[in-house]
Amino acid sequence: MLECMRDSAHDREHIYRVLYTALDIAESEPSADLEILTAACLLHDIGRPEQFADPNLCHAEVGSKKAYDFLIGLDWAEERAAHVRDCVYTHRFRSNAPPHSIEAKILFDADKIDVSGAVGMARSLMYHGAVGEPLYTTNTDGIISDGSDTDEPSFFREYHFKLKNIYGKFFTERGKEIALGRQRAADDFYNALLSEVKGAEKHGRELLRRLNGM
Amino acid sequence: MLECMRDSAHDREHIYRVLYTALDIAESEPSADLEILTAACLLHDIGRPEQFADPNLCHAEVGSKKAYDFLIGLDWAEERAAHVRDCVYTHRFRSNAPPHSIEAKILFDADKIDVSGAVGMARSLMYHGAVGEPLYTTNTDGIISDGSDTDEPSFFREYHFKLKNIYGKFFTERGKEIALGRQRAADDFYNALLSEVKGAEKHGRELLRRLNGM
Repeated sequence: MLECMRDSAHDREHIYRVLYTALDIAESEPSADLEILTAACLLHDIGRPEQFADPNLCHAEVGSKKAYDFLIGLDWAEERAAHVRDCVYTHRFRSNAPPHSIEAKILFDADKIDVSGAVGMARSLMYHGAVGEPLYTTNTDGIISDGSDTDEPSFFREYHFKLKNIYGKFFTERGKEIALGRQRAADDFYNALLSEVKGAEKHGRELLRRLNGM
Repeated sequence: MLECMRDSAHDREHIYRVLYTALDIAESEPSADLEILTAACLLHDIGRPEQFADPNLCHAEVGSKKAYDFLIGLDWAEERAAHVRDCVYTHRFRSNAPPHSIEAKILFDADKIDVSGAVGMARSLMYHGAVGEPLYTTNTDGIISDGSDTDEPSFFREYHFKLKNIYGKFFTERGKEIALGRQRAADDFYNALLSEVKGAEKHGRELLRRLNGM
């Protein structure tokens, strides 16, 4: 598991956060099988190296097969290894592969909670830094885009088209509750960022105009 | 100038933010020469590629010579090119090379303001992502460090030993005022991050202990 976690947004600590959050959610879901859930949490990103090497591959699909083979190798019963495989397969947000079992729903929610709040903002910023994408882009008039009106990749765009919209997409009540408790920290941070850069830009451009008119 | 800006924390937009902020500060410093200041802002990070290629080099030192040569090549007067050179030389925080002229002090403050507030936090997170350093590390007992008690590189450590401590280190009154106006957004974001990860860890470890005791 640890060998498959190489970037700052999907490192060992991400796995532990997902596990801890999943156990929290499971407290409110008494029918959840905790052994299945724990295995699914620990193994959910095991397909990342394959996706990293070939972005056409889906780490959830590749990882589901790797997790199954790994657990069969540990002499898990076929049915239980298949259950973990299905959890890993559906943990990624794809409309054509939603989670079915309660363990799959908990894993999905726990993984999405790590995209919410201040942690979600921090991980996204680290990811954008790692792939060399900017904090924001400017529109054709040279003015900073808040991310809502551009197709160019940036953190501001990611906030508008993904990060700020995840709070309605949870399968468990406890998952939704945790995410909503973190929403304000994320929104406050984006608003502070935007205010700092747009405020400096507005004032600075006025001063430049005044200088050029001198 | 643009060719020397390749990472997300020191891209073209960083240069514009520094220029805009410097012009803002200069409004309160009527003796500042705005042509010297503008040139110094635009050229201040021109030595970054050399430092990136050889971390033993200091981009402020290398950049100061490059800026001087560039301006001499544009037929600037030697005295004015030397003035810009000195601004670039002292823009980086080093106790043995403080800024002397008002233009050098304004550039220093404007560059440090881009390390303050939400923008400073976002740029540092992008930098840590780019160099593969984690959000936080764990101590030998496996517990998440808040960054204050570790030598291992991480964003939390950077916050404790650098980002949270810059607010007293300004040369101009206006620079200090802008930075202090941004301090709360940075501190709130760190505290939200810490609360999210430590809260999940504390609860999750209790649940794991309870499971293992079953």
